[in-house]
Order: sequence, then C-alpha cells, then structure tokens
Amino acid sequence: MLISCVAYENGRKLADIAKEEISEYVHRPGSFVWVALFEPTSEELSEMAAEFELHELAVEDARHGHQRPKIEEYGDSLFAVLHTVENTKTPAGEQDLLVGEVDIFVGSNYILSVRHRTQIGFAAVRARTEREPELLRHGAGYVLYALMDNVVDRYFPVLDQLEVALEQAEEQLFEDTATRRKIEHLYSLKRKLMTLKHVVTPLMESVGKLYGGRVPQLCVGAQEYFRDVYDHLTRINASIESIREMLTTAIQVNLALISLADSEVTKRLAAYGALITVPTLIAGVYGMNFEHMPELNWTWGYPFALAVMVAVDALLFVQFRKVKWI
Amino acid sequence: MLISCVAYENGRKLADIAKEEISEYVHRPGSFVWVALFEPTSEELSEMAAEFELHELAVEDARHGHQRPKIEEYGDSLFAVLHTVENTKTPAGEQDLLVGEVDIFVGSNYILSVRHRTQIGFAAVRARTEREPELLRHGAGYVLYALMDNVVDRYFPVLDQLEVALEQAEEQLFEDTATRRKIEHLYSLKRKLMTLKHVVTPLMESVGKLYGGRVPQLCVGAQEYFRDVYDHLTRINASIESIREMLTTAIQVNLALISLADSEVTKRLAAYGALITVPTLIAGVYGMNFEHMPELNWTWGYPFALAVMVAVDALLFVQFRKVKWI
Amino acid sequence: MLISCVAYENGRKLADIAKEEISEYVHRPGSFVWVALFEPTSEELSEMAAEFELHELAVEDARHGHQRPKIEEYGDSLFAVLHTVENTKTPAGEQDLLVGEVDIFVGSNYILSVRHRTQIGFAAVRARTEREPELLRHGAGYVLYALMDNVVDRYFPVLDQLEVALEQAEEQLFEDTATRRKIEHLYSLKRKLMTLKHVVTPLMESVGKLYGGRVPQLCVGAQEYFRDVYDHLTRINASIESIREMLTTAIQVNLALISLADSEVTKRLAAYGALITVPTLIAGVYGMNFEHMPELNWTWGYPFALAVMVAVDALLFVQFRKVKWI
Amino acid sequence: MLISCVAYENGRKLADIAKEEISEYVHRPGSFVWVALFEPTSEELSEMAAEFELHELAVEDARHGHQRPKIEEYGDSLFAVLHTVENTKTPAGEQDLLVGEVDIFVGSNYILSVRHRTQIGFAAVRARTEREPELLRHGAGYVLYALMDNVVDRYFPVLDQLEVALEQAEEQLFEDTATRRKIEHLYSLKRKLMTLKHVVTPLMESVGKLYGGRVPQLCVGAQEYFRDVYDHLTRINASIESIREMLTTAIQVNLALISLADSEVTKRLAAYGALITVPTLIAGVYGMNFEHMPELNWTWGYPFALAVMVAVDALLFVQFRKVKWI
Amino acid sequence: MLISCVAYENGRKLADIAKEEISEYVHRPGSFVWVALFEPTSEELSEMAAEFELHELAVEDARHGHQRPKIEEYGDSLFAVLHTVENTKTPAGEQDLLVGEVDIFVGSNYILSVRHRTQIGFAAVRARTEREPELLRHGAGYVLYALMDNVVDRYFPVLDQLEVALEQAEEQLFEDTATRRKIEHLYSLKRKLMTLKHVVTPLMESVGKLYGGRVPQLCVGAQEYFRDVYDHLTRINASIESIREMLTTAIQVNLALISLADSEVTKRLAAYGALITVPTLIAGVYGMNFEHMPELNWTWGYPFALAVMVAVDALLFVQFRKVKWI
Repeated sequence: MLISCVAYENGRKLADIAKEEISEYVHRPGSFVWVALFEPTSEELSEMAAEFELHELAVEDARHGHQRPKIEEYGDSLFAVLHTVENTKTPAGEQDLLVGEVDIFVGSNYILSVRHRTQIGFAAVRARTEREPELLRHGAGYVLYALMDNVVDRYFPVLDQLEVALEQAEEQLFEDTATRRKIEHLYSLKRKLMTLKHVVTPLMESVGKLYGGRVPQLCVGAQEYFRDVYDHLTRINASIESIREMLTTAIQVNLALISLADSEVTKRLAAYGALITVPTLIAGVYGMNFEHMPELNWTWGYPFALAVMVAVDALLFVQFRKVKWI
Repeated sequence: MLISCVAYENGRKLADIAKEEISEYVHRPGSFVWVALFEPTSEELSEMAAEFELHELAVEDARHGHQRPKIEEYGDSLFAVLHTVENTKTPAGEQDLLVGEVDIFVGSNYILSVRHRTQIGFAAVRARTEREPELLRHGAGYVLYALMDNVVDRYFPVLDQLEVALEQAEEQLFEDTATRRKIEHLYSLKRKLMTLKHVVTPLMESVGKLYGGRVPQLCVGAQEYFRDVYDHLTRINASIESIREMLTTAIQVNLALISLADSEVTKRLAAYGALITVPTLIAGVYGMNFEHMPELNWTWGYPFALAVMVAVDALLFVQFRKVKWI
Repeated sequence: MLISCVAYENGRKLADIAKEEISEYVHRPGSFVWVALFEPTSEELSEMAAEFELHELAVEDARHGHQRPKIEEYGDSLFAVLHTVENTKTPAGEQDLLVGEVDIFVGSNYILSVRHRTQIGFAAVRARTEREPELLRHGAGYVLYALMDNVVDRYFPVLDQLEVALEQAEEQLFEDTATRRKIEHLYSLKRKLMTLKHVVTPLMESVGKLYGGRVPQLCVGAQEYFRDVYDHLTRINASIESIREMLTTAIQVNLALISLADSEVTKRLAAYGALITVPTLIAGVYGMNFEHMPELNWTWGYPFALAVMVAVDALLFVQFRKVKWI
Repeated sequence: MLISCVAYENGRKLADIAKEEISEYVHRPGSFVWVALFEPTSEELSEMAAEFELHELAVEDARHGHQRPKIEEYGDSLFAVLHTVENTKTPAGEQDLLVGEVDIFVGSNYILSVRHRTQIGFAAVRARTEREPELLRHGAGYVLYALMDNVVDRYFPVLDQLEVALEQAEEQLFEDTATRRKIEHLYSLKRKLMTLKHVVTPLMESVGKLYGGRVPQLCVGAQEYFRDVYDHLTRINASIESIREMLTTAIQVNLALISLADSEVTKRLAAYGALITVPTLIAGVYGMNFEHMPELNWTWGYPFALAVMVAVDALLFVQFRKVKWI
Repeated sequence: MLISCVAYENGRKLADIAKEEISEYVHRPGSFVWVALFEPTSEELSEMAAEFELHELAVEDARHGHQRPKIEEYGDSLFAVLHTVENTKTPAGEQDLLVGEVDIFVGSNYILSVRHRTQIGFAAVRARTEREPELLRHGAGYVLYALMDNVVDRYFPVLDQLEVALEQAEEQLFEDTATRRKIEHLYSLKRKLMTLKHVVTPLMESVGKLYGGRVPQLCVGAQEYFRDVYDHLTRINASIESIREMLTTAIQVNLALISLADSEVTKRLAAYGALITVPTLIAGVYGMNFEHMPELNWTWGYPFALAVMVAVDALLFVQFRKVKWI
C-alpha cells in the first residue's frame, strides 16, 4: 500500500506527487523523492524497483521480509533493513514483543521505505524533518538517519520495561519462596531479551560502518548523526549484556535458594515428625505387657504419662525453635 | 558416477557433451564446461583432475571426503567444500540430521561438483541458471554462487525445525513435571544444533572472503551475490547462537524446576505421612496398659477415639490444603 | 547553576570572569576559559552552546544526561561523558552505589564541565592545576586530563570496598551454614560490580583513543597523561573481571555447600530418627499379647526392657558419632 | 641418540653419511642434510648446534624439552616444536594420553629433528618423501611439511577415540541411572580433551603464519601444503570445541538426571513407607484397650483385620503404580 | 635502600661506584650504570629520578607501588612493572601467594630496578650477566631481558604447585565422599590461580610489544630474547587457562557427586528404616487385642514371632544388598 510520495528540493517540500510523476522529479538535480510503502504487493514493489533502478537482490529481500537487520551498499545506493519492536499481547493475554521490519532503499535522489508487520508509521519523522529544512538540505542520507533514529528511539521503552521487569524479579527472588511462576518469569524475560538483542546487535555492527573510516557517499556530512545512532545502539547493547548477565546470575541464585528452602523444609518436617514419634515411643513403652510395671497401677499414671508426652514435646518444640527449625 | 556434463557459451547451453569432449570445450574462449559427479570412483576423479589440471591436495580432499566446509584458492581456481544437511531417520526410527558433502572445483572455464552422502542433486540449480542466461553469462563464478545459494537455502528448513522444537520444549518445560524424556529431548536438540553449527560457521568464515577487500578473480562481478549468501549464513548463525543460549538457559531452568518439584513432593509426602502417624500416636495412647484410664471404660470410648483420629486428620488435611502442601 | 567561570593565560589564572565576558577571552590567543556548571537549566546550556559554538548533538546529550561514558570528536573539539560513582544509602538504609554524570566540552580555548546527580565537585582539580602552571600551560587538553584523572581516582575506593566485601563473603561462605542473607549478599555484590563495570569499560575503550596512533589535536603533548588514566582504568577493569569470576565461583560453590549441608542434615535427622524408632520397636515387641512370653513375668522385666532400650540407643549414638552423623 | 643422517640433492637421496661429513654436504649448493635424533645427550645437541649454527635459545629449548607447540623464526631458519599424542596405559591399567615432543630445526640446507618421549619415529615420512623426488626437490621446507603432516595425522585417531567415548557416554547417560563411574568418565574425557587441545591450538596459531601474508623464505612454494596442515588442525580444533561444549552440556544434564532420579527414589521410598505405616496404624487401632470394641470379640475379627491391612495395601499399591511412584 | 650501584663498559664491570659518581658514568659513551633499590624512601627515588631524568608519571607509579604489570615507553626510555610471586604462610599457617613488585627504569645508559614486598633479590641475575660479557655488551636492554627472564622463571614453580594441587584435588574428588574441606580447597585453588593470572596476563600483553613489528630502540637486537620471555609467559598463561577450565569442571562435577551421594544416603537410610519399621508392624499385629488370635496361645508363638521378624529383616537385608542400597 502506498502511504505517501513527496518530492523535496533544497530541504523544502515541493509537493505530494503521484506515482507516475516520480521519474520526472528523480531526474531533477538537487531534488529527491521520498516514498513510503506499507506491506506492498509484489507488483507495487516491482514498479518502484523499476522507477529507482533498485538492485534485484535487495528487492528480493524486501519482497520476502524476515531479513536480519543490515545495511548494504549496492554501488552508490544503500539498502537498510531495520527491525522495530513493539509491545503486544499474545492471544493468551500475556505481554510479548512484536518484531516488525522496515526496509529502506536510499539513493542520491530518492528514499523508499517499506514497512512490514508494524503498526506505527513514520509520520512523526516526516514532520520533524520538514521542520528542519537546513538539515533536510543534506538530502536522502539525512532522511535515512532520521528514520533510523526514530526506529532506535523506540527500543528504549522496551529496554526500560525489561530493566523494570528484572528489578521486580530480583525483589521477588529474595522476598518469598521460590515458585514455578518466578522461574517461568525469569525465563520469559530472557526470551524477550534475546529478541531485543537480535534486533539491536546486527544493526549496531552495520551502523558502525556509516561513520569513521571509509563511508558511503550518501552518508558523508551526516557522519556525526550516524555516530549518534551508533552510540544509542551501543548503550542499548551494553544494557542488554548487563541484564543478560544478571539474569544468568538470578537463575543460578534461584537454584541455590530453592535448595536452601528445600533443606529448611526438611528440617521443619523432621522437627514436626519428632513431635509425633517421641510420644508414640512413650505410648509404646506403657503399652508393654510386663507384669511388674509400677506406673501402670498408679492412680495418676495415665495423666502422668500424658503429661510426660506433652512435656517432652514442649521441650523439643522450644529446642527446635531455638535452632530455627520450626 | 557422472551425472551430467554440459558445455555453455555466452550464458546459453551449447550441448550435453561426452567426457572425451571436455578438453575441446575447455580451451574454447568464452565457453565453460559444467560437470556433476556423484560419489565418483577414484579413477573418475583422477580423470577429471587431469582434464581440468586440478591441484593434487584439493583432489585428495575430494577423494577422502569428510572435510570441513571451506573455500580455498589454488592459483586462479577455487576449491569449495560445502556441507548439506538433510532430515533422516535413525535405524531406531528417531529423527536425525544427515550431513552430506559437496566439493566444487571452479576455474575460469569449468566447474566440477562432486556430491557425497546426499540424496538431493542440483538439477534445480541447473534449471534456474539456464533460465537466466544474462546472469549465467558471468561464467563459472556465477554457477558457484548458484550452487552455494542452493545448499545454504536448504539449511533454513532445518533451522526452522530446531526453532519449532525449542518452542515445543519450552512449552512442555513449564506445563508438566520434569521427566527423563524432556531432558533427553533438550540434549538431542543441542546435539542437532551443534551439527548445524559445524556446517554453517566455517562456511560463513570462508564466504566472507569472496566479497569486499581482495576477492578471487572468479568472483569479481558476482560479489553482491556472494554477500547475499554470506548474509543468509550470518542470519542462520545468529539464530543458532540464540537457540544455543536459550537451550542452555532451558537446561538450567529445568534443573531449578526439578529441585522445586522435589521440594514440593517432599512436602506432600510429609503431609500424608502426618495423616498416618498422628492417628498412630492416638492409637498408641489408648493402647497403654494403665489401670486407670477412664476413656477405656466409656461405652462410646472406641468410637470416640476413632472420631478423634478422623477429626485430627481432617483438621490437618484442611491445614495442609491451605498451605498448598497437598 | 553556574559554579565558576575563570580565564587562564599561559598556565596562570587571569581572573574570575562574568558569563558575558567569555566571548572576549575565548578569542584572545594563548588564553582559555574554564566554565563549570551543575545541573544547568536548558537555557544556561543553550547560552554556553552559543558562546562556544558547541555541536547540537553533543548539547542534546548533555541536556538529557543518562548517556553512557564516551569521548567523541566534533571537528577540533572533544565531547566527553564520564560517570562518577559514589556510595549512598537507599531509603531502606542499605548501602548502594550512586552513579552521577559529568559532561565535558573541550576546545582549544575553552573547557566546559556539566555535572549531573553528583555531590562532589571539582574544586580540588582546579586547585591542583593552578598549583602546577607549567603543566596547565598545555591548555584545555591538560584540564580534561586532570578532570578525568580525578573522576577515575574516585573509582578506586569503590573497587576496594567491593574487594573487601568479596573477601568477607568468602570467609562467611566456609564459616557458617548457608543462609538466604548470604546469597542475597553475593547477588547484591554482583549488582554493584556490574554498575561499576558499566561505568569503567566504555570509558576505557574511549580513553584508549586519546594516546597512541592518531590522537585528537587537543591531546597531543598530554598523551602520556592520558595513557596513565587508561592504565588506571585497565587496572580497575582487570580487578572487576577478577571479582566477577570469583563471585561466579562463589555462587557455584555456595550451591555445593548447600547441597552438602542438606545431605548432612538428612543424615543427622536419620540418626535421631533411629534413636526413636528402635526403642519403639522394642516396646512394640513387649506389647505383643502372646501368652508365653517369659520376660513379661520377670520381676525386673520392665527395667530390663528399659535398660535394653537405653543400651541400644547408647550403642547407636556412639556408632553415629563415629561416622560423624551426629 | 643419532637415528639417521642422510644427504639429499635435487630431491634424491645421495647417501647415508657420518656425522663428521655433515659440514661438507651442508656447504654444497643444492643439497641438504636430514638428521634425526632421539632423546639426544646434551653433547650430541651441542655438536649439531655447532654444525648447523643453531641459535642458542632454540637449542636451549630443545635441550630442556617441555616446550609448548610453536614455530619461531631465527633469521632465515625456523625452529618448530610439535607435540605428538599417543595412547598409553597408566600403571593402574587405565587408558591415558602420552604427550611426546618433536623439535625441528630447519635451514635452507639442513633439517634436524629431535624426538622426546615418543615411541613412533619418522621412518614412514622419510620413505614417503623419498618416493616423491619431484616434491622433495622443494628442499628442507618440504620435509618440514611432511613431518608436520605426519604428526598432525596422528591426532585424528585420538580425536576419533574421544568422539566415540563421548557418544558412549551420551548413550549411557540416558540408559541407566547415574553412577559415580559415569561422572568420573565424563571428567576424564574432559581431561583428555584438554590435553589434545593443548597440543593442537598453539600449533594451529603458529602454522597459520606459514602461508598467506608474509611467509618465511623456507616455506615459499610449499604454502599450499602448509595451508593443508592448517586446515587439518582447524578441523581438529573445531571438533574439540564441539566435544567440549557437548561435555559441558552432558555434565549439566547429568546433574539434572541425578536430581530427577533422587526425586523418583524419594517417591518410591515414600510409597513403600506408606505400605508399612498404614497397616501399622490399623494394628495400633486394634491394639487399643477399650472395653467396648465389638470387633475384638468377633470370631473372624483377627483375620478380618489382617484382610483389611492387605486390602488397604493392595489399594495403595495399585494407586502408586498408577501415578508411577512404584 | 640502595642495594648496589655498578658501572659497566663494553659488557664488563668497571667498578662499584658511589651514588655521587653516577652522573659521571652515565654520560660516558658506551658505558651504563645499573642501580638496584629495595623499598626506597621517597627521597632516594627523587634523587634517582633527577640523576636519570625519569618521567614524573613513572616515578609516581614506582613511589606508590601497587601498579599492574606493564611496560611503557617514555620517549627513548622504558618503564616496566613486573610482579613477583612467592610462596608464603598466612598468619593462620596456611599456604598463600605473596605478590611483590619490581619497577624497572631503563635508558640507553642506565638501568634502575626498584623492588617492593619481595624477599628474593637479583644477585643471581647480576652474576649471570657478568659471566656472559658478549651478551652484556648489548647494554641496558639486555639487562632488562635478564631481569624479566628471572622474574618469569620464578612463576614456574608456583604454576607447578597449582597443577599438583589440582591433580590431588581430582584424585580426592572421586576417592572419598564430598566434604566441606574439599570444596574449600577447590575454591582456594581458584583464588591462587586468579592471583597468578593477574600477574601473568598483563605482562604477556606488554612483552608482546617488545619483539616483532615496531620495537623500542632499547630492545632492538635482543628481540629474540624478549620473544623467548613472551613464549614462557604464553606457556604459563595456557596452563592457567587449562587449570581454570578443569577447576570449573571439577566444581560442577563435585556438585553432581554431592547430589549423587545424597541420593545414595537417602536409599541407605530408607533401607535401614525398613529394617526397623517392618518388625514394628509385625509386633503391632501381635499387639492387637482380638480374642481369637490362635498364634497368641501357641507355646512357641513368641519365639515364632521373633523369628518371623528376624527372617523378614534378613530377607530385606539380602534384597537391599543386591540392589546396592546398603
């Protein structure tokens, strides 16, 4: 689906144009065309490929989707695949991460973005860039930066959520006893973290090539902007690694806590067991059939026996309390 | 066994030719010969080695098979070893991965593929390349790409299976109690993953040398195609790493779940134990032989004692239910 | 908040100047201006940005704070983000680490430091540099070094604390039995360590670019000083890695100790259990109702039975002591 | 001990020569001398060092043995240390790995091999190289290759053994219950693996410098052969890493299996315990001394009680079977 | 404290000289001065710094001590920090590692060594170098090598001790049951290993820069000697890594053994428990008060009951033995 198609010149919007006018503006020096597609049909894509002379392999990638994040040079043009991450609910009602995809084709006089499986568009990016004509004058390369910056900025709330979830998990870890739910929670946290990592790490590697050293012609002049994106990605990546390590430690620590709790339960059970078996022994003694057992004839023999049972149990109870078994 | 032997010129098939005609076509400028062998005898291989002047060490590798994936330059020619991965059944009826091998010798005017231990051939590749004469015109280097692309594409379904298997294992992990089978399943998943990793990682490293920087003469012009193969391999590799990490976590989490379940069993057993030992104690008390035990003479003493037992057990049962021990 | 604003020439302080005089001194050759801000308002920052012609992206970073440590070149100027680490108390009264931020803008004729969330200022740095005019003559680059050196020196006491805490944890590990508190302690140690690591590692990577190889113009001549800072960071980093590895081992070892203690508790309980159940068996035997049980008629039968019980228990006790179960 | 001393010219053996003749042949252009020593005395080594003008440090290394695998350049000559690995039996009769050492000095006109602690010699290498005069014509560098190739080829059977041992360990892991022996087996497998790794990894790093990039003069022309050796080492190394990872997983999985089996044993014991304690309770009830217990007077009271016990146990047994506790 | 101060020329000792004569000899071409200090006062160090024109930062490092191992260039001179490792006893009488420090300043005409916290001096190095005037002729750079070689050689016995300790720990691991002491031993082994690693790894990295590639002027000509030191450090480092991995495995395996032993104890206890509870059940049966229990009236009823108890226990015992529970 074609979302928008706009021509720019000298950092200012010229006009919304029709698909058919693209080729006209593309060949006008100093101007460029910005086209946005959402889950295009194969034909739409082929049309654009012909219009902008896109490389067959890049078009193939955009057609199939499900690429990993990357930035590739095809001659003077660039092909970037970015992943978006959004919060969503599973059919079962649990929170999950939805990974979408944005494929961007950039040449000196055009920029074409293709969104897949993502609800949020780039209207905000368009508005922002149009507010800053002095920057937009840098051309299509700057638009690429603005799009990437926008996508990367959307990773932060997801990361923050994971950090908050980790902190909650940590608090729970030491507060109550271990439960199946807690372990499940740690595991699902790890899963989400890996999802985010999969989105961030390859992109970071690719963006690293857009500043410093040899840089694609399109990005020259906007290098400091791409370094800024790279810096954001590095920050996210470092936090991911940190959460990952703490998660691993939390899982290990959780195991130790389970073993410890198990050991405490064993002691508690043994203590209560003793409170039952010791009087049973006493009862057994007075159940013996010896002819000469003086206590049996005492008037207060029975209450005495019961009292002994209670006394011994009371003693044991105090003792167990002291060593914290009960 | 010789599967096929075809001469090409200018991107178009000239003819199926006989083994004896190879040398004639090989020396014709602008044309190349494509030979496919399947588990050749040592003599067949020697014949081809003489025909194409292959390097002794490469021929030796192809003769013995069981090489690790690699791409080596011998002067102007290339020697590539690829592994194929197919699903198969063990004699015991379990699913397993079958690793086959494809050795490819490429020169400017020939390409020779040698398949070992793999059922699926390259007829599809031949058909595809012949449909695209404008690409086939690139020569033997492009055929090498087409073969590699085909082999790598076959890794994806295997990877998908492993991902599905992991997801199933994860679901089971938290659904039921731990079993020997589940652990065995996680372990065999790991094994298959390592098999796939062994196939993918070395190839990825080798393909990385076919584009960017200094590139073998044969691959010049087809670099973007090899980058595409590399990109696929990177994607597979990243997924393998991700599955690997989740598997490790799953095994750790499984241990925690086993410990937790063990702890729960202990509690349940202790609770049921109490339901038996407490009435035993009461019975023991009334089994004592004191002369003066008023209850013994009561008419309803016996039913009373039984009632006490039942009542105490009922109380305990409710109590244990409340703390979720039963 | 503007903390101070001083002009220097030839390594000597000229005067405390007003904000409005900055531009005058900045354009005087051989002199530079040193401005210190603490949690400035957005306007203060914009004012300075205009005064020193700071790059928009760097100003944006300083405005938002919460950057990761880094050193970036913008043309001939540098933008450094450092993190400070201070000990603090959580509302719950526990010791924690407070991470503050210092953003430093340096040009050939100015240096601007912006502190966030940190109580300790840089008065000491100012005093030290003014005491060493022959070094201060190196200009703004040397001031950058002095600030960095000061920030890095403050990491050492935090590191020492962590090392002491690890040693204490290790001693406790083998001294007493495992407790929930100990595990919690190891975990919080790990958390603090990761906090410090997050502060140190990215800075180390950045400082590495200020000496050796191509060096920003501002740092030329002070390279040995930056290498010294780098060396300190490397030392801290190596210690962090070492503590990290020992912590991991401590957590593993702790689990083994818990399992071991559990096993010992099981044995102890079983031993005490035997001391109860064996006499119970004896009592049971003499509680049987056979007509012909000679012992029952003995005068000393009852004391004898009791003596047997005590004797068997004494024997068992000695036996259990010998194998260290009790 | 001097094993052999032979002069070669133009790829063909000239003659077995005496130690005293070495210097004569060494200075004859186009010829080279190949000397093989086995655990030489210090004097023999000094003699050779003087003859071939070997570097003091290299000779010192060969004298002491126990070096790690490496290849060092001393001017135009090379000094290589290789480790051999052989199967051996410990005095206790267990299989173990014996690590031997081969030190090789190579110059343009000599090659000197010194074997330590290894039973198998290089007669086979000598025979092979003499059969291929066209290759031997490459000179001492080719002999170095042939020796290395031979040593590396001997690693494969050791590796295969470890792979077989791992497979056996895996099968046993899931077949029977865990035993001390199995754990010991996994551990000793790990030990052997580390031994092999210690032999392979440093050699791989060194051989990597003998082809591609700047190459020692001696190896020029034989680079493809050294790449082949490197390739073998890479293959072995990858397999070692793979075994290592599976071993780690196996040890983790083993722990989970032990915990699981422990949990199953607990359940089984509890079930059998119930089969004993429940009838004990019933017996206790009928051992009570109430005056009015109708069952006690029944003629069939006793058999009835026994029948109840058996019935309850039968019921429990069936129940436990159903939930797989017994 | 000044240990010694000697002037050398042309590889031969000229004379022991007084501190005041240093400047005279330092400026004499072809000669150099070798000064050794032990825990010098701040003044002694300042004196030397003035004499040899040492760099302020390096002197500062030597003054404070507690640096990490490193080799730094200051113009044409070098500053090296080495750590020594010696065996020592803790106040509690346990073996521990004592880490000392040697700071070495080297220029073309002087070498100054400063020892901290280490008992063993370098008299042996002085004696060795004076015995080899042809090597000492290389000048101060060669003395640096000799000192480093001596320090590094002292690491080997420490490493050997750790290897022996690991082997002992391994033997004990499988011989007896797990104990708190064994775990403590594994942990302290790990601690010592990390201490040694901390000493070795940074030095290895630094020495790697003294040979191959661009080399400090002072080390030119002695590069093969520094490569030899590097090689020793690499060997130590590889062994450390290997011990580290085996230690990790040993700790994991230990946990498995503890779990296994726990499981065996549980079985043994259950078996002995059965030997008590089963006769208790039998006694309970004959303790029932039924009027019609034929066995009770048998003359041999009581011995019969006892015999049944013994027989059942014997049967159980044999059974438990068979399944190895007892």
